Amino acid sequence: MSEAAKSKRSRRRPPIGASPGTLVFPAGATRLKLIAFDKDQLVAREGVRLDELAALVRPGQVTWLEVEGLGDEAVLRGIAERFAIHPLALADIVNIGQRPKAEAYPDFELVICRQACRRAQEFDLEQVSLVFTRDAVISFHEGERDVFEPVRERLRRGTLVRTMGADYLAYALVDTLIDGYYPIVETLGAKIESLEDEVSARPTHALLGQIHRVRRELLTLVRTVHQQRDAVSALMRAGHPLVSDPVRLFLRDSFDHALQISDVLDTFREIALGMVEIYHSSVAQRTNEVIKVLTILSSIFIPLTFIVGVYGMNFEHMPELRWQYGYALTWALMLAVAGGLLWYFARAGWIDRDGE
Amino acid sequence: MSEAAKSKRSRRRPPIGASPGTLVFPAGATRLKLIAFDKDQLVAREGVRLDELAALVRPGQVTWLEVEGLGDEAVLRGIAERFAIHPLALADIVNIGQRPKAEAYPDFELVICRQACRRAQEFDLEQVSLVFTRDAVISFHEGERDVFEPVRERLRRGTLVRTMGADYLAYALVDTLIDGYYPIVETLGAKIESLEDEVSARPTHALLGQIHRVRRELLTLVRTVHQQRDAVSALMRAGHPLVSDPVRLFLRDSFDHALQISDVLDTFREIALGMVEIYHSSVAQRTNEVIKVLTILSSIFIPLTFIVGVYGMNFEHMPELRWQYGYALTWALMLAVAGGLLWYFARAGWIDRDGE
Amino acid sequence: MSEAAKSKRSRRRPPIGASPGTLVFPAGATRLKLIAFDKDQLVAREGVRLDELAALVRPGQVTWLEVEGLGDEAVLRGIAERFAIHPLALADIVNIGQRPKAEAYPDFELVICRQACRRAQEFDLEQVSLVFTRDAVISFHEGERDVFEPVRERLRRGTLVRTMGADYLAYALVDTLIDGYYPIVETLGAKIESLEDEVSARPTHALLGQIHRVRRELLTLVRTVHQQRDAVSALMRAGHPLVSDPVRLFLRDSFDHALQISDVLDTFREIALGMVEIYHSSVAQRTNEVIKVLTILSSIFIPLTFIVGVYGMNFEHMPELRWQYGYALTWALMLAVAGGLLWYFARAGWIDRDGE
Amino acid sequence: MSEAAKSKRSRRRPPIGASPGTLVFPAGATRLKLIAFDKDQLVAREGVRLDELAALVRPGQVTWLEVEGLGDEAVLRGIAERFAIHPLALADIVNIGQRPKAEAYPDFELVICRQACRRAQEFDLEQVSLVFTRDAVISFHEGERDVFEPVRERLRRGTLVRTMGADYLAYALVDTLIDGYYPIVETLGAKIESLEDEVSARPTHALLGQIHRVRRELLTLVRTVHQQRDAVSALMRAGHPLVSDPVRLFLRDSFDHALQISDVLDTFREIALGMVEIYHSSVAQRTNEVIKVLTILSSIFIPLTFIVGVYGMNFEHMPELRWQYGYALTWALMLAVAGGLLWYFARAGWIDRDGE
Amino acid sequence: MSEAAKSKRSRRRPPIGASPGTLVFPAGATRLKLIAFDKDQLVAREGVRLDELAALVRPGQVTWLEVEGLGDEAVLRGIAERFAIHPLALADIVNIGQRPKAEAYPDFELVICRQACRRAQEFDLEQVSLVFTRDAVISFHEGERDVFEPVRERLRRGTLVRTMGADYLAYALVDTLIDGYYPIVETLGAKIESLEDEVSARPTHALLGQIHRVRRELLTLVRTVHQQRDAVSALMRAGHPLVSDPVRLFLRDSFDHALQISDVLDTFREIALGMVEIYHSSVAQRTNEVIKVLTILSSIFIPLTFIVGVYGMNFEHMPELRWQYGYALTWALMLAVAGGLLWYFARAGWIDRDGE
Repeated sequence: MSEAAKSKRSRRRPPIGASPGTLVFPAGATRLKLIAFDKDQLVAREGVRLDELAALVRPGQVTWLEVEGLGDEAVLRGIAERFAIHPLALADIVNIGQRPKAEAYPDFELVICRQACRRAQEFDLEQVSLVFTRDAVISFHEGERDVFEPVRERLRRGTLVRTMGADYLAYALVDTLIDGYYPIVETLGAKIESLEDEVSARPTHALLGQIHRVRRELLTLVRTVHQQRDAVSALMRAGHPLVSDPVRLFLRDSFDHALQISDVLDTFREIALGMVEIYHSSVAQRTNEVIKVLTILSSIFIPLTFIVGVYGMNFEHMPELRWQYGYALTWALMLAVAGGLLWYFARAGWIDRDGE
Repeated sequence: MSEAAKSKRSRRRPPIGASPGTLVFPAGATRLKLIAFDKDQLVAREGVRLDELAALVRPGQVTWLEVEGLGDEAVLRGIAERFAIHPLALADIVNIGQRPKAEAYPDFELVICRQACRRAQEFDLEQVSLVFTRDAVISFHEGERDVFEPVRERLRRGTLVRTMGADYLAYALVDTLIDGYYPIVETLGAKIESLEDEVSARPTHALLGQIHRVRRELLTLVRTVHQQRDAVSALMRAGHPLVSDPVRLFLRDSFDHALQISDVLDTFREIALGMVEIYHSSVAQRTNEVIKVLTILSSIFIPLTFIVGVYGMNFEHMPELRWQYGYALTWALMLAVAGGLLWYFARAGWIDRDGE
Repeated sequence: MSEAAKSKRSRRRPPIGASPGTLVFPAGATRLKLIAFDKDQLVAREGVRLDELAALVRPGQVTWLEVEGLGDEAVLRGIAERFAIHPLALADIVNIGQRPKAEAYPDFELVICRQACRRAQEFDLEQVSLVFTRDAVISFHEGERDVFEPVRERLRRGTLVRTMGADYLAYALVDTLIDGYYPIVETLGAKIESLEDEVSARPTHALLGQIHRVRRELLTLVRTVHQQRDAVSALMRAGHPLVSDPVRLFLRDSFDHALQISDVLDTFREIALGMVEIYHSSVAQRTNEVIKVLTILSSIFIPLTFIVGVYGMNFEHMPELRWQYGYALTWALMLAVAGGLLWYFARAGWIDRDGE
Repeated sequence: MSEAAKSKRSRRRPPIGASPGTLVFPAGATRLKLIAFDKDQLVAREGVRLDELAALVRPGQVTWLEVEGLGDEAVLRGIAERFAIHPLALADIVNIGQRPKAEAYPDFELVICRQACRRAQEFDLEQVSLVFTRDAVISFHEGERDVFEPVRERLRRGTLVRTMGADYLAYALVDTLIDGYYPIVETLGAKIESLEDEVSARPTHALLGQIHRVRRELLTLVRTVHQQRDAVSALMRAGHPLVSDPVRLFLRDSFDHALQISDVLDTFREIALGMVEIYHSSVAQRTNEVIKVLTILSSIFIPLTFIVGVYGMNFEHMPELRWQYGYALTWALMLAVAGGLLWYFARAGWIDRDGE
Repeated sequence: MSEAAKSKRSRRRPPIGASPGTLVFPAGATRLKLIAFDKDQLVAREGVRLDELAALVRPGQVTWLEVEGLGDEAVLRGIAERFAIHPLALADIVNIGQRPKAEAYPDFELVICRQACRRAQEFDLEQVSLVFTRDAVISFHEGERDVFEPVRERLRRGTLVRTMGADYLAYALVDTLIDGYYPIVETLGAKIESLEDEVSARPTHALLGQIHRVRRELLTLVRTVHQQRDAVSALMRAGHPLVSDPVRLFLRDSFDHALQISDVLDTFREIALGMVEIYHSSVAQRTNEVIKVLTILSSIFIPLTFIVGVYGMNFEHMPELRWQYGYALTWALMLAVAGGLLWYFARAGWIDRDGE
């Protein structure tokens, strides 16, 4: 999640000790879209005004009201009143930054979801809240990204979703949001793959920072996916009277997708952990390499330097200094010493093992 | 938590083998505030005396008695008697340092909470205990920090809290205490962020100590928040007859806040762990750097020193010494050797990689 | 799992927001084999066409339809229709890459399995899906590997499997798939054993990469085996009406095998973790060795070089330089110093401890 | 726990394959104390003989028999017979070294506890076993430490414990034993605090050994406290008919104390783990320091030594050697080189950072 | 477990896809012993033939048939037929290498155990399988080690076991097998203790290998003990109709022993983990030591070598060279420098801290 978005969000909460259900509206407008349908007909309207709602919601039809942007207090309060949304539920919808969850209220279900949005190199998790009753679904979007167009298209084309109730529509929306994690997961996978290649080749300190950043992103994502999965699982449980048995089967499918995503993420986390280990190992090996060069060079030249030092002494009585071949013999001795040491180091495996 | 406060508290317990319910009163006075209210009227009194209580508590009203300071044995025993508080519950209230919990007694509920108080750079977790019956809430404060003023204000303004029972008031107090963790969490977040910046820039040993201190604070806080969350969850469970169904919905909201706080703290702990790793990596890299400098300098000058040593030898028969350009050639040789080594080190990536 | 296979698979999913049950057919043909049997007779046919099915499936017999390759949409949709397979189940079958699981649908059981196939040095986990009703088993194979021949042989030979229902046949197939993990586990075991020998002998950086690769393979395998085990356990539970009590006993046996496999894999993971530790220890020890050589050589020659430097000075008044035995005494001094240092290092255990 | 005590204990078990209930009596005598009481009177006797028991135990009274030392087989068998203690329970009592637990037998409850005894710098965990029926408590002490005097005092003073049944007395004993862990915990806390101060100041290898010893003590203690807590929790559960509802409330209090103790111990373990990390970091930093000194000194003198080596060469044609100010210029050059290197090291932060 | 034994065992399984209950008989003969007893009489026979069984098993008596060696297919199939042992149970008995477990079949209980056998420095875990019905216990031994002699002795001596049913006899055998872990645990304990002494004294690389080997043995043992414990716990649970209530009490005792053993093993694992840490710390400290020696020697002699180099220069104008006391003053300077550095190193705590 982008850090800016995160810190922005973490400050979106009512003052301490405020009444429960206190709302902190974000800046921005609120736009309404409505689709009302039954097996035979479908009415779709954009830019619906609050006062038009009553006329558009008809008995026997399923209504889907999309609320984009949470900035218009009057509109949101109006919707809450029209659909009898409990103040605590409205607070969870408006005070974004909630964990994904599904909560049963006496007359409706509240499902808090997170929509995964790619944003340049990072990703953001925008809150999408669903409220559904027996014959209506209201979806609240923190941002403007529209991922529900395929569902609208399915409604227009008149597939299964037209013949089922509001619970199936709610399922379809949740399922779309969960499937929306796949591209993020793939982006992360590509990032990890490229990091993995680099970490063996050039283990820089900056790379370690990147690995840690990816690990934290994985952590955020894993936690969100787990919560989303638990929300679906809560919807599936018998206690929710608004969810019909056939829809439970479909929710099991969504649950499965969430499981699959978290499996992949778990593998990524394992890989990331392994990369940290490989990084440390690479650094240790480079230090080793440096020390080895120092040792080999020192070990060879230090004895040689001693030998030349010996014959740099100024004693009056040093017979070697007067020998005809003293100088040549000294070179021979030095070459022998150097050769012997090189042979020793080669035998010990310190030289010319590039692949090590 | 400040260490001083902690060790002070850990010694606040009765002698071993003492009767259960033995009380160890802290020093200090005890002040009482009382608010009695119903839908229509509200009476608020400060500095209430024990003997006035009977007159102020009226049937049909909800009474909220605030007890500040736990030093006055007579007053506390009087209150326990007046509201039929079980000796074990009173012991938990007076012998501060209890874990947050909610316990059902036959005639009342005991909720032990911790109030998070910022104190300079650190924070303290003072015990606030709540006892509530069907029509009364008694809150016991270890210290003097007053965080309940917003609740009193809501009572005075006559909002929802005036129309609900004692269980709702108790919920409102617990919720206020839980929300009180947010500022502490934010302070910790800022601390961690600044540590994170420093740990890459200047990984000093002192910094590691600071990171460990923050990690310990996080541990203390996480544990307290978990216990607080479990206390709320215990209140929500069906077994508590004093908690009505609508209030359960509100408690679910508090439970959610506690979950959110512990999510954030878990992220912080992960970040802190990552910082320790980055610290160690930075230190290793600095050692690496130092060794590299040593190696480069040694590797270049050790062969050169050997060469000059050679021509410092005093052999009588060293033809080079008599050459016209012997000295110049030696310099040329030495520059070639030095240049070659520098080229080798540059190729191996040991020189001029500042970002590494 | 081979990386290529994995990435190929992870892209096999319908577009986001598509209807549930949207199918993404892989390339390739679909071949059908059918065996219909009862206690007395058995009919086996290969290359069955869709329109022949109706004639081959007879009441009172158990039908086993094997579907090899998932590329022929018409055939697969025809089978789904003929055996009333729920669209979601068909989606799980066709959109390969599902986790192993067992799911009860109103009229049939769906069991998703993974078949472990060795492939050169690696292994692949192909999806095999089983659908079984009261009197039919349909098995869907992603690939062409045929591991069910022993079961067909048992059917032909007329053993127990001929006298039991479709649930027993389904069990026999699941059991065969689970037993198919043993050879993979043994291959991995041999790989780990050979790595273990190498890691102590020659701890190269490349080896660490291999260890990490094996660890990741173990992780993938462990997870799949756990899911497979849970699928068997789900089948065993009372809720599945299609599974008879005697077959539950047999499933308990399969469950046991899965447990045994995951026990072995857990041991492997522990060993792999130990190898990483031994690797790091070996590297540290080699660095240690290198530094020791440097230290010993330096420590011996640095004082000697100093001594010869002393008598290389050009002071006019250095009485030693004129002594008859000055040079010899200097050698004696130097030998004494070198000997003393060698003795010190030997006593400190730095020399000649090959096994260390 | 002192190692001697531990190994002594671990050998206290019957031969393999022996009958269950086989007793291995420790050396030593057995002393009996008896207190019989009801609301109105209390009889306390020390040095009771087995044959006096029958006369002292009276219907309508609660009897508390204290058995000190487990060496006298006849007495212990007599008591087991008198109070109908099951052979397996007697075996658990006599064959000390059992884990704390609470077990319901048809006619009595067996509670195995561990009494924490400070012993010089270490602590020992002696077994104290309680058997209680409807109207009797028998406590068996492995050693001679008497921690129950406060309970006897409360009995003599005639507080609550006189008016309740045997279950309350048993609770009072268990509670006393659990509270007995507090001083041990505090001693450990002080030890950890002093280790923490030292580990930053002087991270010696011996210190690491001490830290490991403390960690092991913490592990032993945590495990014992957890088992003790589970024993209390087992007593609290509904299945134990000998425990009355009011006593359950008191047991909940003991349970809470055990939880608090294990919270503190968990914090200690976290601190101890942090100390290990700080130890390693300190060692790494000291190595770093040493290498830095080596590097700085070498880096400065190696070039200088090269320079003086140059002018130690014996070439006939070295013009500098004949310059008037050659020597002085060489010194100037050397000072410049040394100064330049010092400036570089200072800029790189290698010099004079004491606090690092 | 000895590796040879382990790999031998891991290959003991039927071919993939074989019928469930397929038997793979190990090589070797099968010997039968039988004891039939009631309260009044006991008949013990060794070397029983299959056809004698019918005559020896009498109604009203408890029969204990011991089967040593699993190599004789005819005998084993005969026994299975005689006692109506389910083919899957027989497969678990014959195909050794099963995990310890207890499984209820309609007419009998199957308990798979592992018998711990010391074997030189290592230990082996041989499979012992028990089948018991209402009036018969059949024990199947993979190997020849006889640990049940004490139980036979108890039968002969006519203790409790003679008066109880087959369930008690089965318990007695399980209990004997569990107690058989104690000597192995003690051997491991001694090994760990001796390793612990060595790891501080001489941390060789070979020692690390030994520690890892012990850790793996501990892992194998812990897992087996846990499975054994779970098997006992499964027998204790209410669902097993063949186990009477009094025997449940005895099984609780066995369960307790298994718990105690795994407690000890957990402590061992913690110690072994600590040893690895101490090993690494010791190695790091030794490297530190070596580097310190290098640094001290280098730091002292490098400046001195520079000084003597200075006066080895051949400048014509070097006034010091002509001074009367130039040489002596140089020595004085060098001693001062060396002394100053030694003082500095001593102050920094680098010299003469043997205990560090």
